[in-house]
Formats: sequence, structure tokens, C-alpha cells
Amino acid sequence: MRTGIATVCLSGTLKEKMQACAVAGFDGIEIFEQDLVTSSLSPEDIRKMAADLGLSLDLYQPFRDFDSVSEDLLQENLRRADAKFKLMSRLGMDTILVCTNVGTATIDDDDLRAEQLSRLAALAGEHGVKVAYEALAWGKYVNDYEHAHRLVSAVDHPHLGTCLDSFHILSRDWDTAPIEDIQTGKIFFVQVADAPKLSMDVLSWSRHYRVFPGEGQFELAKFMGHVVRAGYSGPVSLEVFNDVFRQSDVERTAVDAMRSLIWLEEQSAKWLEANPAITTAGGSNGDTGTRAAGRRRYPMELATLPKVAEPAGFNFAEVKTDEPAQLETLLGQLGFEFDGRHRTKDVQLWSMGHARVIINEQAPSHSEPAITALGFDVDSPVIASARAQQLKAPVVPRKVQADEEVFQGIAAPDSTEIFLCQGNPDGTAAWTGEFGEGSEFGEGPEHRDAADPAVIDHVNLAQPWQHFDEAVLFYTSALTLEPQPFAEVPSPSGLVRSQVMQTSDRSVRLVLNLAPLLHQEPGQQGNGGRKTYQEHIAFAVQDLVATARAAQDRGLEFLKIPANYYEDLDARFALDPYFLATLKELNLLYDRDANGEFLHFYTATVGSVFFEMVERRGNYDGYGAPNAPVRHAVQYDHLHRN
Amino acid sequence: MRTGIATVCLSGTLKEKMQACAVAGFDGIEIFEQDLVTSSLSPEDIRKMAADLGLSLDLYQPFRDFDSVSEDLLQENLRRADAKFKLMSRLGMDTILVCTNVGTATIDDDDLRAEQLSRLAALAGEHGVKVAYEALAWGKYVNDYEHAHRLVSAVDHPHLGTCLDSFHILSRDWDTAPIEDIQTGKIFFVQVADAPKLSMDVLSWSRHYRVFPGEGQFELAKFMGHVVRAGYSGPVSLEVFNDVFRQSDVERTAVDAMRSLIWLEEQSAKWLEANPAITTAGGSNGDTGTRAAGRRRYPMELATLPKVAEPAGFNFAEVKTDEPAQLETLLGQLGFEFDGRHRTKDVQLWSMGHARVIINEQAPSHSEPAITALGFDVDSPVIASARAQQLKAPVVPRKVQADEEVFQGIAAPDSTEIFLCQGNPDGTAAWTGEFGEGSEFGEGPEHRDAADPAVIDHVNLAQPWQHFDEAVLFYTSALTLEPQPFAEVPSPSGLVRSQVMQTSDRSVRLVLNLAPLLHQEPGQQGNGGRKTYQEHIAFAVQDLVATARAAQDRGLEFLKIPANYYEDLDARFALDPYFLATLKELNLLYDRDANGEFLHFYTATVGSVFFEMVERRGNYDGYGAPNAPVRHAVQYDHLHRN
Repeated sequence: MRTGIATVCLSGTLKEKMQACAVAGFDGIEIFEQDLVTSSLSPEDIRKMAADLGLSLDLYQPFRDFDSVSEDLLQENLRRADAKFKLMSRLGMDTILVCTNVGTATIDDDDLRAEQLSRLAALAGEHGVKVAYEALAWGKYVNDYEHAHRLVSAVDHPHLGTCLDSFHILSRDWDTAPIEDIQTGKIFFVQVADAPKLSMDVLSWSRHYRVFPGEGQFELAKFMGHVVRAGYSGPVSLEVFNDVFRQSDVERTAVDAMRSLIWLEEQSAKWLEANPAITTAGGSNGDTGTRAAGRRRYPMELATLPKVAEPAGFNFAEVKTDEPAQLETLLGQLGFEFDGRHRTKDVQLWSMGHARVIINEQAPSHSEPAITALGFDVDSPVIASARAQQLKAPVVPRKVQADEEVFQGIAAPDSTEIFLCQGNPDGTAAWTGEFGEGSEFGEGPEHRDAADPAVIDHVNLAQPWQHFDEAVLFYTSALTLEPQPFAEVPSPSGLVRSQVMQTSDRSVRLVLNLAPLLHQEPGQQGNGGRKTYQEHIAFAVQDLVATARAAQDRGLEFLKIPANYYEDLDARFALDPYFLATLKELNLLYDRDANGEFLHFYTATVGSVFFEMVERRGNYDGYGAPNAPVRHAVQYDHLHRN
Repeated sequence: MRTGIATVCLSGTLKEKMQACAVAGFDGIEIFEQDLVTSSLSPEDIRKMAADLGLSLDLYQPFRDFDSVSEDLLQENLRRADAKFKLMSRLGMDTILVCTNVGTATIDDDDLRAEQLSRLAALAGEHGVKVAYEALAWGKYVNDYEHAHRLVSAVDHPHLGTCLDSFHILSRDWDTAPIEDIQTGKIFFVQVADAPKLSMDVLSWSRHYRVFPGEGQFELAKFMGHVVRAGYSGPVSLEVFNDVFRQSDVERTAVDAMRSLIWLEEQSAKWLEANPAITTAGGSNGDTGTRAAGRRRYPMELATLPKVAEPAGFNFAEVKTDEPAQLETLLGQLGFEFDGRHRTKDVQLWSMGHARVIINEQAPSHSEPAITALGFDVDSPVIASARAQQLKAPVVPRKVQADEEVFQGIAAPDSTEIFLCQGNPDGTAAWTGEFGEGSEFGEGPEHRDAADPAVIDHVNLAQPWQHFDEAVLFYTSALTLEPQPFAEVPSPSGLVRSQVMQTSDRSVRLVLNLAPLLHQEPGQQGNGGRKTYQEHIAFAVQDLVATARAAQDRGLEFLKIPANYYEDLDARFALDPYFLATLKELNLLYDRDANGEFLHFYTATVGSVFFEMVERRGNYDGYGAPNAPVRHAVQYDHLHRN
């Protein structure tokens, strides 16, 4: 698949954009006219720079408001087009995007439109330019790709074809199957963009909320599947604008963009395999007979990625600090056991059942505790790492001794280190054998009876706003987690957007939180400016009340839940008075839905980290969302009182 | 008018919210349930704190999903209501908001709903509680205030009345006139919120985009006029939630909120005066006869503000710096004349026609130039200042000598100082007589021939995102400028939201720019972190080409416009080649619309300030918006190259 991206997706100057696209590995780019108009580079400079960077200049865009106008205005528009065609020749470009008229269309007549497009195609032909005609979702008279293509077919000129943009098609819920009926060779260009499903006017939606494939909710693999079956083999080019990308670091956004196309390529191949073409009599594609074959080769070659299964669970979570005393106390009070220090590194291991926490003391001076790494159990760490690297995940360099297990590590967008580990089916981990010296029990954790089935239930990571969507794509593509619909949780300093990513069996649950902006100001709190919002690790146990009582006996500082909460809980659920009293006594929170019950409590915060203990009863599948505002309010109160 | 605000509008803990409301001068508050549930204060503590702060507790809210349910669920809901009524008695509160069912309604039957509401009213009566029933715009079966009120009327119970929320009514475009037909006394509560007109799903619109009255586009004065005519005299209470307020400083937001109600009160009185009630036979209000009188007194008393005319023009603009050399050079090159230093202060005056720029050197060491004050010509500075102060504008302290003009100054939300000046009808200003010593001409500016009609055309101020809406209300209410629909301008680092505020005769044009977030990070550029985005002052002249040539001769550094821009300009407008060459030679920008033409150029930036010179031909009324991306791109390029 030839990859492309429109310069409008990226921030900075045209030169910065082009360099970033080359670094990220794109085959070509679309030149957004405004980027050229505002650039000090001449068309010839741009042509040379693209050649030097190995980028093809695939599309000049956009040419607006051409058709459906009076003859006077058409003359004006042809003059304007002539100037642009000449400019394209200086750029060495041969395809221009002409979108359906929004602003100046006054005559709704397909015959007239076809005649006007025909004159444009003739002019374009004189300059060796191909016109890719695109239906904008908010075009005044033409806003549907099938309508636009009917006009292209009516004109039937070699210099006029169709441009398909997934946003304009999927935002309007147009059926994508008829894409396959477009005559081979008449799709001149394909643009892809994803978006969250929002109900708002389509222009604002398009302008502010487009995201890269995999970061939204559109069925893009299906869209691409139809495009591939239509015989298209040109560039698949991103055209995405939103309020975040326009402001973000250009090189980083380019890599995020490239990752989305690599992922989309894989998903498209999967869709084609899962959805064999059906022979239809009505196909005008000319090769109806062969379309029945599910595995036939299409002109567009789709590269594949190393195949991996979902991760089977959390292998460990790592907290980094050079001042571990409070953390050690907290883990001990929760019931974790100290499994000793690593043989060669300044690292401690603590565990409770199969929940393992590493305290990494190899931290700069006065580093308050922060979650810095997560280990996931995967079938094959090497294959999983290869996949992640092909998806442009940066590799984490790791120093190991000769006889130690080598972890495959990659960096997540928020710079959390993600390690791909070889898990054991029984929930143990071989690398724990490297720990043990200094254990109070005189033996390593691998010898301990693992009767307590405690596990890491979920980990909650705060994301900076610039990298939230990027993080969703990263975990979706590299770690094959499935994003769930997001929630918004009130806190005293703003709404917290909460995005759950999980495996289908729920053995891995990761919660990405987009903290309110004021929490993200540098220097407010946290560890060296990186983590400026509280994050946590939640452990699941079988009997939360017993766990809480034991923790209370060991002197744990619980997050104190206000009495008003329990009154409200009673008003909502009419709980058994003894049970309610227990909840209140132990600062436990409670939730219930049709599937089951959820009990949980929180510890005080150390650095930017706190812990949660949870008990899931029945098939409760949530996270106690109705209780989140209480947690936020109490934490806010603590922070502001200290 | 009794003023109120819901605690959900503000950030922080319940205690912080209540204190901020008291400081801002609200009469009462609505307690948002979640603020109580998450608070460590007991209901009795809250009651006492409110009493101590002089705040009445006007409304407990919300009670959700009560009606249109099965009998089983109704029993549950009555039990839940009973618990809340008991809680309210501990709080000393007597009114609860019950909103129409969204989540659990299954039976669409008005008779059943009336019966269920009747049982709720009876229970409420036993507790001395009044139920204010509100139609949510997205209520499952009841989403229209007239429908909700028909149910209230059908029940006809003294403890059941209507709650009107302007958002739920105006977002759905319901007619507000029938509010007058609601029986006197049956409106139990009124909530007000404004919003920009957006086409999106009403729940998201409500949750993220509500703003305080005067910050959006709803016809709130009309809504309030009908409410007043209906005989309502209870609290008018703000219920506003959006992504910004939830994160902003609580005391500041409370003052902004209070300002919006004071302004709304004035606007409502004006609307009532301009729209005398019409006698209608259908009125059920019981006093149809008296409603015909345009100036009758209503139970709700509406306070008035000092009346002022629109400002007649800019009196001056002030730039502050202790390193004025570059600024002096720039102004001199533009054709400004140095009018000397102030008699007693370390301040210079420069002028060109009636455009006056003050360079204030009373700045901290190494302060780069920044726009710090604007003077406006008003009829009566004292009355204008009184109005602004009643609208809670902070007063700027000003030291003056005995024989100097006293300026009335107030601080805008971005801390720009706004001075209310006595302008002369001929465009001169008396205070310029305080300058003159040190003038190179040996005479003060008051003696100079003012043949050159140059004026300040507009001033462009950057606003931090937290205070953008607040700034719109400030200039609307305190300075009586009219907000125009906003535009979004692309820049290399994000979209810039641009909001024009102007007088009806355009003698004052102020542009508020909301800079992309990454421009607002502390320490990036600017003057002590306050101004982190470029701002400018634009001067209008009669002959821009002559002005530009003269400036070129004096060695002015123009903002260099790329050659590509002129090619595009030609493609768009087919300009006369000689004229186009002149534009290109002098780095002039050009725009044209149906009303006229616009020529302009920009200077290089000094500190965070640059200047623009403009010429308006015909009735051109814009700001050259199509050229703004070019300006942004070239400035970005300069900034990143330096």
C-alpha cells in the first residue's frame, strides 16, 4: 500500500512538515494549498526538496467551489484553474483535488454540472493534469460520492476521476459497498480519516474532530476493503485535522500518522479475508467473475504484520523512586510480601498472589514514586516486539547480565515503558528467580505457595492531552487491546475523560485518563514534570472486607470517604444496615449493576501513585465509575490541604 | 432580582465554592447533590456555613428519573425521595429540583405521570418540601416546559410547581412567550444559562458549552422578560457547566458569574421597556388587564445600571517596556511623530493624526514591549467607570499630580488596563498637553495641525483560554461593545479563534484572539509570562501605498510576504499587473469583498507587539481574514528561525 499524508495534518512550516513525513517513512504527500501560499519556498524549491527527501507529490488540494455556477463565474473559475494547473506543472504534480461546491453554487442541474466538469477536464488535459472530484459531506448540491461519480461517469474524460474521502462518506453513513462498482481506474485518489461518532454538524465535526485511523470509531477496514476490491492501487493518504494535531510536535504526529496507516493496512487485509467478495451481477467492474474468489490478489498489495494473540495478563507493574520507604510501608500494609532485591540491580520485588510490583530505585535523586513501567504476558515476546517495532514503537534499551531474562521493551506515548514478557500459564514469572537475596523469608518468591489468587486488576495511567489519541492507537495496534466507549468523570478541577482499553477476556484492563488541563501545568505536582496527575494500580482480591480489615490492623492510611457518601449509597441501594456499617467503617466504596457488585478502596497517595484494592462479585465489569467523583474530591481536598 | 448560582458551576470543594459565592455577592446557591455527597462537611455544617456566609440555600438538585416508571420502581423512587427530603430538612432547605426522566422511563402516559407526581408532591408536603419539576431538553417523554407544566397543572398540588431552565428551553427553540401564561406562583424556580449556537446533540452541548449570560447567543433578556411578566420573583440562578469553568479559579469564576446576572438584569429591564405586554384574551395569569401597561411594576424588581453610550473611539494605546529603542524606531519609521515626554512620569507620547501611542517606560527591568493599556473616548468617564464598577470590574489605581487629568481605569480579564477618557469631538485629547517637554519640535502636540486623519483602526489582544468567555462578557457589559460571530484562522501551530467586538459605527474595533494552547505555555516567549502570544495595534490611513513607500524610505522592516501569496492573489482576483507589482514590492496584503477593498501591511515584532497599517476602501468591514494565515506563517517562521 502506498502511504500518503496531507500537509494540513501537521503543524509547522511546509519545510518542517515535509521533513517530518520523510522521517516517518511516508511514500508521498498531498500539498495543502495554504501551506504553499504561506511558504517562502518557491514551487521549484518544493519540487526539489520533495525529490531529495524521497517523497512523491501526490495531490494538490483543494480547488473549491468550481461547479454549479453561472457562466460568468465559470469563466472566472476556469481562469483560476488554469493558474493552478500552471503552478502544478512547476511543482511537477499531476493530480488536483476538486471538491463539490459549497459556497457559490446556485444552479442545481446535473447536466450543467457535467458540462462544466467536462470543460474543466479538457483544460486539465491540456496541462497533463488529472482532476479528482470529491463529494464534500456538506456540498451544497453534491454531497454523496455516488452522485459525484455519476457526474464523472457522465463526463467520461480520461482526466476526470473520483476522489474518495472516508470522512465524507462515513460521516454521512453512506453505504460503502457500491465503491466496488466504480470502474477500475476511475478512482483517482483515496483519503482516509477516522473520527469519534459525534452527533454534531458535519463541518465542525470534520474540522475539529478527525483523527487518524484506529483513533476513532469509523469502519475504515471495511471502507478500505471495498476500495481494494475496486482495483484501486494509488496512494492511501491521510487527511486529518483536529485541534490537537495542529498544535503538536510535527515529527511525533507524523509517526503517529504512519502507525495508523500500517495498522489500517493490516486491518484491511483481515477484513478482506473475513469478508469474501460476493459475485454480483450488477458489478460494472469488468471482472465480476474473479471477485468471487476470497483470496484473489488485488492490484494493491497489503503488507501484513507479525500476528500476536491478546496479552494474557499483567506480568508486573513498576514504580520508580529513590525514596522507597513510604511505598514499602504501603505495600506491606496492603498485604504484599517483600520478595527480596534483584541480584544485580537496585530493584525490589513485592508480590501478593500473582500481583507483582517492582520498586525501581535506579531513579534520580528525590524522585517521588511514579508508575514507570508495565509488564504484559504475551505468547512470544520476540514476535510481539517485532510487531510493535513495525508499528514504529520506540524500543527501550535494557541492560542485562548474561544469565538474566531479556525483556523486550517499547515506549508508550506517555513514555511509560511497556515490557513484553513470557508469562507462565500458572501466573508465575520465571524472572522472579533473579530476586531473593535479602528476602526476609530466605527464599525466592518462586518457592512460595501461590494460594492467594490476587492479580493486577487494572492500571490507570494519566495521559497528556496532546497524546491521548496517539496512546489509544498505540495500545490498540501494538498491544491489540480493544478501546471501549469513553466516559467523563467529574472532579473538583474539571471533567476527567476516561478511556478503557482491554482484552476480550478482561485479563488486561488499562484505563487511560485525560486529566483536566490545569492538572497538566508544569510544576504543579508530580515527578519532574512528567507525571502531573495521580495514577494508580488496582489489585483484585477474593475477599475485600477481609483484606481491608487486615490492612487496617497493619495501620494502612485509607482514603477517607465522607459520611454523606454512605447516606447517598443507602438512599440509592437500600443496603443491609450491617453491610453499610462495614463499608463505612472500612472506607469501602460500593457499586452494583445488573451483572454484579463491586467493592473497592483506595490508599493515600505517595508521589503521583496510589493503590486500589477491588473485589468483583458476579459478572460486574466496570470500575465503580459512580464513585470516581468521591475519590477525586477527597484526593483534591488532601492535595490542597497539604 | 435575587441572584443565585448552582455549586456545579464552580471548581473546588463545596466549602471553596460557597466562600467564593459569598465573596462575589450572590444572594443564594443551589446545592448540587454530588458536591454534598463528596464533601466531608455534614449537612448541619453546610447549613451553618451558609448562614454564616449570608447565603440562602435555594435549591437542592437534581433528583433524577422519577416519573413514567413501573409501580415497583416508583416505590423505590419514593423511598429515595423520602431519604432526600429528610436530608433537606437537616440542611434547612425547602425546594428540590426534580427533572423529567431520561434513563428509566418506560411508560409514556400523562395520566400515570400526573398520578406519580401527585404522590411525590404529597410526600414532599409531609416534609414541607416544594418540588420544582423541570423538563430536560433530552427527557425521554417530557422535554418541553409547556408539557411539564401541563402535568403540574393537572396535579394541582401546592407542593408541586415548575422549574424553568433557559438552556433546556432555548436549546430546543421552544417559544418563550407562553411562560407568561403560567399561573402566578407556580414557577418555583428559574435557572439561566447562555450558550453559543451550535448544531450538535443537545446533551453534549449542555454539558460542555453552556456559558454565563452574555457569553453566548441565546435571547436571555426576552426569556427573562416573560418570566418577570409571569409574576415570578424568586431567585434567578445560574446553572452553567463547561470545560473551562470547571477548571478555572473558583473566586474568579464566581465574579464572572455575578457580572453576568447584573448585566442580564439590566438587559431584561430594557427588553421589558422595549416590548410592552400585549393584552391577550388567553392569558391565565389572572391579571390580564394590567399586563397591557408597558411600565407596570412586577413583583420582581430589576435594578438598573448607569447608562452609557458606546465609546466614540480609541483615545490611545499604551505599550510598556523599559527598553523602548526598537519601538521608537518602528513608530518613527511608520510616520509617527514624537510628541515629547510627560511632565512628571517616565512616559512618551507618539502620534500620527489622531492615533496616539504611549510608551510607558515605568516597567520592570528587561520588560519586552507589550500592550498594557487602552484608552477609550466616552461621554462621561465617571459614569462609565461607575457602570464598570457595578459590573464588578476591578479598579486600576492611578497616581496623578494635582494639575493632571484623572483617568478612570479598570482592569480587563487579561489584565490589560482600560481607561475611560473624555474625548474631544475633533479627535484630540486634552491630556496631551501634559506632554511636550523634550519634543523635537519645541511645542506640544496640541498645537500641531491634525490634517492627517490617521486613527487607531483596531487593536488585537490575545486571551488566555481560561478567560476568553469572561473577556467577551466584560467588554459587552462594561464597555457596551457588540460581539460578532467568531472566526477560526489557521496558523502553523493551530487554529486561532478570533472574536471581533465593536461599536455599531465601527469607531471602536477590538479583536480578541484565543491563541492555540501551545502558545500559552509559560516561558515560551513574551513578557514575564503574561503575554505569551503576539498582539498588535492597527492604524488606518487614507493612502496605504504612500504610507508604505514613506516607511520603506525610512528603513522600516516590513513583515515579508512570500511570492507564492501574490501568485495566489492573482489567481483569485485577476489584479491589474501594475497594482499587483506594487503590492508585491511593498509587502502589502490585499482583500476584496462585495463592499470594498482592504490593503494592509505588518511590521516586524518587538517583544510581543507588532503594528499594522490598513486602508479601507469603500465599505469594506472586515480585517483581511483570508490573509491571516500568511501573517501567522511568516511570524512563526521568524520566531523559529531566531
